[in-house]
Amino acid sequence: MTAQDRVLVDLTAATMDGPQPYGLIEDAAIAIAEGQIAWVGPRGDLPQGYRDLPAESLGQRLVTPGLIDCHTHIVHGGDRAREFEMRLEGASYEEIARAGGGIVSTVTATRAADEAELLADALRRVDVLIAEGVTAIEVKSGYGLDIETELRMLRTARAIGQQRPIRVSTTFLGAHAVPAEYAGRADAYIDDVCLPALRAAHAEGLVDAVDGFCEGIAFQPAQIARVFDLARELGLPVKLHAEQLSNLGGARLAASYGALSADHIEYLDESGVIAMDEAGSVAVLLPGAFYTLSETQAPPIDLLRRHGVPMALATDINPGSSPLNSLLLTLNMGCTLFRLTPEEALRGATQHAARALGLADCGMIRPGLRADLAVWDITHPAELAYRIGFNPLHSRIFGGQS
Amino acid sequence: MTAQDRVLVDLTAATMDGPQPYGLIEDAAIAIAEGQIAWVGPRGDLPQGYRDLPAESLGQRLVTPGLIDCHTHIVHGGDRAREFEMRLEGASYEEIARAGGGIVSTVTATRAADEAELLADALRRVDVLIAEGVTAIEVKSGYGLDIETELRMLRTARAIGQQRPIRVSTTFLGAHAVPAEYAGRADAYIDDVCLPALRAAHAEGLVDAVDGFCEGIAFQPAQIARVFDLARELGLPVKLHAEQLSNLGGARLAASYGALSADHIEYLDESGVIAMDEAGSVAVLLPGAFYTLSETQAPPIDLLRRHGVPMALATDINPGSSPLNSLLLTLNMGCTLFRLTPEEALRGATQHAARALGLADCGMIRPGLRADLAVWDITHPAELAYRIGFNPLHSRIFGGQS
Ligand SMILES: [Zn+2]
Ligand SMILES: [Zn+2]
Repeated sequence: MTAQDRVLVDLTAATMDGPQPYGLIEDAAIAIAEGQIAWVGPRGDLPQGYRDLPAESLGQRLVTPGLIDCHTHIVHGGDRAREFEMRLEGASYEEIARAGGGIVSTVTATRAADEAELLADALRRVDVLIAEGVTAIEVKSGYGLDIETELRMLRTARAIGQQRPIRVSTTFLGAHAVPAEYAGRADAYIDDVCLPALRAAHAEGLVDAVDGFCEGIAFQPAQIARVFDLARELGLPVKLHAEQLSNLGGARLAASYGALSADHIEYLDESGVIAMDEAGSVAVLLPGAFYTLSETQAPPIDLLRRHGVPMALATDINPGSSPLNSLLLTLNMGCTLFRLTPEEALRGATQHAARALGLADCGMIRPGLRADLAVWDITHPAELAYRIGFNPLHSRIFGGQS
Repeated sequence: MTAQDRVLVDLTAATMDGPQPYGLIEDAAIAIAEGQIAWVGPRGDLPQGYRDLPAESLGQRLVTPGLIDCHTHIVHGGDRAREFEMRLEGASYEEIARAGGGIVSTVTATRAADEAELLADALRRVDVLIAEGVTAIEVKSGYGLDIETELRMLRTARAIGQQRPIRVSTTFLGAHAVPAEYAGRADAYIDDVCLPALRAAHAEGLVDAVDGFCEGIAFQPAQIARVFDLARELGLPVKLHAEQLSNLGGARLAASYGALSADHIEYLDESGVIAMDEAGSVAVLLPGAFYTLSETQAPPIDLLRRHGVPMALATDINPGSSPLNSLLLTLNMGCTLFRLTPEEALRGATQHAARALGLADCGMIRPGLRADLAVWDITHPAELAYRIGFNPLHSRIFGGQS
């Protein structure tokens, strides 16, 4: 027993566990012991063994698992506000490129920033997520595109988890874009930079998963496969930016490596959905990019439902295609733009987001899992997705600590 | 001279005054005297008379006029999260209506709430706007649809301005919907309720402007005209919810009464645009409702530009078609969904929003206007519209008071 062991009472629990809507338990009790959930259920059923723990009243508030943002590029240098403005003023892509815009500008700014600068900048954004009940995030590399900067981005990601009460899963995304110095030589980039950077990052313990961007403007499936082969050799799980703008069969490729997830997937077809289902991959939906890019083809939600592929929702926060710094707003976008139900949206930012990161110890309120919880000033969980630009967080519990 | 008289320095001023982009002045000084802006310009040009005032450094931050939300239904009872959920679960409009959904549910909840309850509920939302630099809001009635409740809503709106450092413009919107007890008898509702409620509210000093909802599902132009005739008799300016779902010529009708604004206007045609231009009416664009209702026809932005009709942006915050509680997010939606430039968006929430409310003393940083300012942790004003779900407000100055 630790000083923080206690029983939370006077609450409704949206456990997200089990098939009933939201796993909802009215007038629930949640026993916390040693940073974990020891018991959850109707208060009247609280076992004798927990009745001696101190009780903490949550004033009839709603409790959910801490939210999880399973796809972010939250570590990066610079911003692209001026490019956003130029585009709306009618500038062509060529004009924007000539003015130094596009992903190149983020790579340049990221390479120029030291770890302290990257960290300070990322923490501004991380703190916004923490303020809306997020207790775990994924952070990708992919704006360095040289060995040194890819490693620096991942070290920054790890530092976030040391500086803030939030869990960070790191993802190596060396195969994000072909840098200018390798223009037209993507294979050479994979050989010279991407694979050595992955080996070095793994040796330093910086990699929880390996990702790539499989698209005409980025890497071909055969190039991604070379990166995934090394991931397999190193014993690292994979995930993939796939089928965002076209269908190159990326999700199928990722599934053949037992991917944790395929992400974006606007252009995914049924064979890809079936492959994901068989591999147990999560569909990570990113409505912020869909919204920002004014896309019109939504992911195949009905096919994903029909085949029982779990759907997660994430911000994709990045300076270009998704400067979206709110997971709550992402829930609303998932409903409004992709027609998810509020319950699917909330499962997508809790239970299924945990699975997309390969985390078995969070994402639900269930005995044995970490006591990562969000306490909300609302009465029904549908309100989380319903409101737009309103944050009803009351408090946040991380590993049992208020 | 008052204790708060001072000169703000070490700042960039986006004055929104004049034709140059954002009315931007680098290394500016802003002199504040007796709650008003006494002088603004390059710091080096600060007149001798202001050099003895205390200087307050803003640390190189960006200063804009305080933001203005010129179209809200922020006073209302209840929420419609469950209806939002039912719709996404596939319920028909009939099923939702049978479950008590739709505007009827908001009218029922609003009638059941006393002024203290309405105020407490509204202040939760108002405080979110204040936290993002909003210094003036418009608040409409229109969920009472009986004399007593319409008056209670407007009293609540006035109370907001007493409880918080924010300026409130009240708008009488008795002609918002036909209540159930007058179903099929809209003219009788106008006679029995709407006109008497307007007279009573005006007599109590509760009305700054008069609004209506001109649409097939609400009121016909001839019915709106009767309300506007009384407004004219009482010396009150008018505005109108017009051309949101179809073109009934509402904007032209409003313009013929010299309307402050026509709002929504997705279906406005060129003759309506010309009428608005000639009347000096502002086009109030409401992307939150467009987004929430998954509309596809955007307002005629190019026509409005070509005819020089000033465009404002507002949240339209309401529990049904726009549960959008963020004016910053509205700026982004104006750019992303309606292709406004970031500068047009910011003028829409400052200079043009003031004009849509008939306020001549705010909306720009200009000598003689109120010192209602927002101070931001950013370097360029385009960032305000670029980011999604991120609030860079540093501080807020209201009538010269920090
Ligand atoms: Zn991404
Ligand atoms: Zn409205």
